[in-house]
Amino acid sequence: MIYKLLNGINHVRPFTEASAHCDIPCGIYDPALAQISALTVIRMVDLIGAIEGNSVADQAKLTRYVTQKDEHALKVKEEIRVIWGDYYKKAQFEKIPDAHELVHKIMMQASKCRHNIDRATAVELLELVNQFAEGFWLTKGVATYTATCPYPPAEKVVYPKLAD
Amino acid sequence: MIYKLLNGINHVRPFTEASAHCDIPCGIYDPALAQISALTVIRMVDLIGAIEGNSVADQAKLTRYVTQKDEHALKVKEEIRVIWGDYYKKAQFEKIPDAHELVHKIMMQASKCRHNIDRATAVELLELVNQFAEGFWLTKGVATYTATCPYPPAEKVVYPKLAD
Amino acid sequence: MIYKLLNGINHVRPFTEASAHCDIPCGIYDPALAQISALTVIRMVDLIGAIEGNSVADQAKLTRYVTQKDEHALKVKEEIRVIWGDYYKKAQFEKIPDAHELVHKIMMQASKCRHNIDRATAVELLELVNQFAEGFWLTKGVATYTATCPYPPAEKVVYPKLAD
Amino acid sequence: MIYKLLNGINHVRPFTEASAHCDIPCGIYDPALAQISALTVIRMVDLIGAIEGNSVADQAKLTRYVTQKDEHALKVKEEIRVIWGDYYKKAQFEKIPDAHELVHKIMMQASKCRHNIDRATAVELLELVNQFAEGFWLTKGVATYTATCPYPPAEKVVYPKLAD
Amino acid sequence: MIYKLLNGINHVRPFTEASAHCDIPCGIYDPALAQISALTVIRMVDLIGAIEGNSVADQAKLTRYVTQKDEHALKVKEEIRVIWGDYYKKAQFEKIPDAHELVHKIMMQASKCRHNIDRATAVELLELVNQFAEGFWLTKGVATYTATCPYPPAEKVVYPKLAD
Amino acid sequence: MIYKLLNGINHVRPFTEASAHCDIPCGIYDPALAQISALTVIRMVDLIGAIEGNSVADQAKLTRYVTQKDEHALKVKEEIRVIWGDYYKKAQFEKIPDAHELVHKIMMQASKCRHNIDRATAVELLELVNQFAEGFWLTKGVATYTATCPYPPAEKVVYPKLAD
Repeated sequence: MIYKLLNGINHVRPFTEASAHCDIPCGIYDPALAQISALTVIRMVDLIGAIEGNSVADQAKLTRYVTQKDEHALKVKEEIRVIWGDYYKKAQFEKIPDAHELVHKIMMQASKCRHNIDRATAVELLELVNQFAEGFWLTKGVATYTATCPYPPAEKVVYPKLAD
Repeated sequence: MIYKLLNGINHVRPFTEASAHCDIPCGIYDPALAQISALTVIRMVDLIGAIEGNSVADQAKLTRYVTQKDEHALKVKEEIRVIWGDYYKKAQFEKIPDAHELVHKIMMQASKCRHNIDRATAVELLELVNQFAEGFWLTKGVATYTATCPYPPAEKVVYPKLAD
Repeated sequence: MIYKLLNGINHVRPFTEASAHCDIPCGIYDPALAQISALTVIRMVDLIGAIEGNSVADQAKLTRYVTQKDEHALKVKEEIRVIWGDYYKKAQFEKIPDAHELVHKIMMQASKCRHNIDRATAVELLELVNQFAEGFWLTKGVATYTATCPYPPAEKVVYPKLAD
Repeated sequence: MIYKLLNGINHVRPFTEASAHCDIPCGIYDPALAQISALTVIRMVDLIGAIEGNSVADQAKLTRYVTQKDEHALKVKEEIRVIWGDYYKKAQFEKIPDAHELVHKIMMQASKCRHNIDRATAVELLELVNQFAEGFWLTKGVATYTATCPYPPAEKVVYPKLAD
Repeated sequence: MIYKLLNGINHVRPFTEASAHCDIPCGIYDPALAQISALTVIRMVDLIGAIEGNSVADQAKLTRYVTQKDEHALKVKEEIRVIWGDYYKKAQFEKIPDAHELVHKIMMQASKCRHNIDRATAVELLELVNQFAEGFWLTKGVATYTATCPYPPAEKVVYPKLAD
Repeated sequence: MIYKLLNGINHVRPFTEASAHCDIPCGIYDPALAQISALTVIRMVDLIGAIEGNSVADQAKLTRYVTQKDEHALKVKEEIRVIWGDYYKKAQFEKIPDAHELVHKIMMQASKCRHNIDRATAVELLELVNQFAEGFWLTKGVATYTATCPYPPAEKVVYPKLAD
């Protein structure tokens, strides 16, 4: 993802400017929702991988994990579609020229996660969503940092850097 | 909310201990979902307050904002119920002895937000949810900090303190 | 569950008092919804137990029953959360001092029912929900009786005693 | 509704026969769900009627009540459709020859309740649903009685007569 | 299905008459929604039939297809219920005297599709839905034709004949 | 929308090629679902425009129509997102190079329809969705024609041209 240069992002940019990007009748956009769902997809793949037998009880577990996995992969699509389709306009596309491609990639990757139970596929979805989050916070003028999420599957997540 | 003393929370506690609190077949719990919904309730109350006339178009807007407000107040209840009902067990209640009361207060407050279009009522819901988040992160051994959320309604939110 | 003493519940108490417990802007609360869902959880466990082979058709059935079981276990949580979170206030808690604990137990038990396909676990959920129903009708001043529900899984259910 | 004669319904008929009406892979059918929703429609109409002013707060309340009313009118349709479409077969139609017409009437009446805020319309929906419940319990060989429901709107509801 | 005679349906009948069948406060009725869902049921049965192994990945796929199949069988019921329950009135029943029976058959057949993974059962559902569509367009005074749908499962579908 | 040249689309292209565009594990894509929802948005705007008074009954109607309008505008987004995000890949983008922009425009226009009760805005949504349908059928190698939909709001809709 090639961002246009944006100098001088400090810890937190004042809100006045950031909120100006947002039409009065907007909702609240936060990529955290998509990120948490992407993490859940990975978690479910891990739980599926940990099933050992093939008893009815094991198959019942599998059904639950697959259903959860698929719902959360869908939720990733929904949350990203909302931000992209409702909030991304000319001003945002100037800062993130490849947003369309990235969003479409996320859709395709989330579909792959629905069709598969492969960990690498799920991690790649999270990475794309993190990339999206990075761009999103850039449009808001908010710097980001990467940290391990404080619960399983303990993967790297992009967070906004906010002042204490 | 009176926490039992917990010494020495540093920036980030190692995961090994935190994830041990979590049964293998658990989902992913993150109070961010409830916090974002509580913020949305405030936002909708603000948008309702900004409606000036009483034309059909204004009434149509009101319908939309009220519907959104009520859905998100409900979502607060759902997300809190999930964490409290699925994840909070003996170990968590030892750290947060008044969890039942707090959760019940959140339910009542979210109902109030559904019955009203009053800003103070909505802000109080966010404060209760923040209090819940504080307790939640305590059970995970993760320190927290408070920052203004980087979008409208620009209210104070409790975030986990994670290492870069 | 230890109820405070309540003398003189007759067949049906007049409504005037009972409806006074209920704020004007309330919905309609009836534990029957949670009880029917708890019965459905048991029923689905029974149907799962009756699957004999491991053909694709059998696995497809399993998927359906597990999905139904899990949805109804969730519905139990939702219905109980609604009554407890919307209707239970000071007046109700005076009559049912251990309501918080019971509700939390139901949440945990419903989760267990989602993780398992064990009949005893499902029956225990129904028993907790029946206990909740008993308390609920007590707050309404309506006596209860126990009868076998008139359809499979033909388990004991607590019903309100109403005048013909 | 004209039932074919059915002699000798006693307090409760044994289950063996009743459950035989029900294919092994059936769910649990209980008209209580439709009845509670029909009661809620009436309740919402009452709450709408109690709104006095036309302030934004009043309009917000109206939105909530209308949304609730319409959702529950829809729920009536769904619950009745499930019982009629899944459970009613040749054996049931022999006992309730006019079931098709009654079900269709309920659909039309529930639609009317969605288009109106008229109490008589809502009460008529409940009466049709009670009539349906009566027929349903007849197919199960379970006698019924009519009682005032123990919460607002305190209308007459048909219940199954079960042994203590 | 025995239609009453209706002479002289031409390519497209003028709207004035057709829309007169429709109460002002009606929604938009189109059997295409039910037809697409019926096609999806067949498609899912085909995909289930194409699963070759019994690995965890195969079982995960099965879970997804079964869930999709069952949701779409349910959607068939919902869409048909809407048209029949909201739009079919005296004028429509005069043209399609056996509408009740056909709708009930569709409900039963859709249930069968939920209980089975049999292709013939799914195709029969589509045929019944096509029959319903034929009757629906008759009530609208719109002629129909049958064509293979332009995507898998490439089955015969009844479409309205519209002027270019 | 500038399509790359595609010679020789006849009435119906054989399926073999069209279905090859579609991965085995795909669902069924049909823009009819989005088109019907876009028509419903227009219909609701028409019904809103026909409300004459400002009584409680009128406001209740308004609430219903606005809720329906908003749900269907959302459904347009969902259906288009599904086709674009699941089915559109390299082969499709070659035929419809501006698909990203068109899809994003539909998202923005559907949002506008949620914020407004303006007929022209709703008609423009339908036109964009028709444009999308045209492109979709092009990727399938199926010719299209435009006809007035056979029910209110009687607007022009793009349909696939299928052989009798």
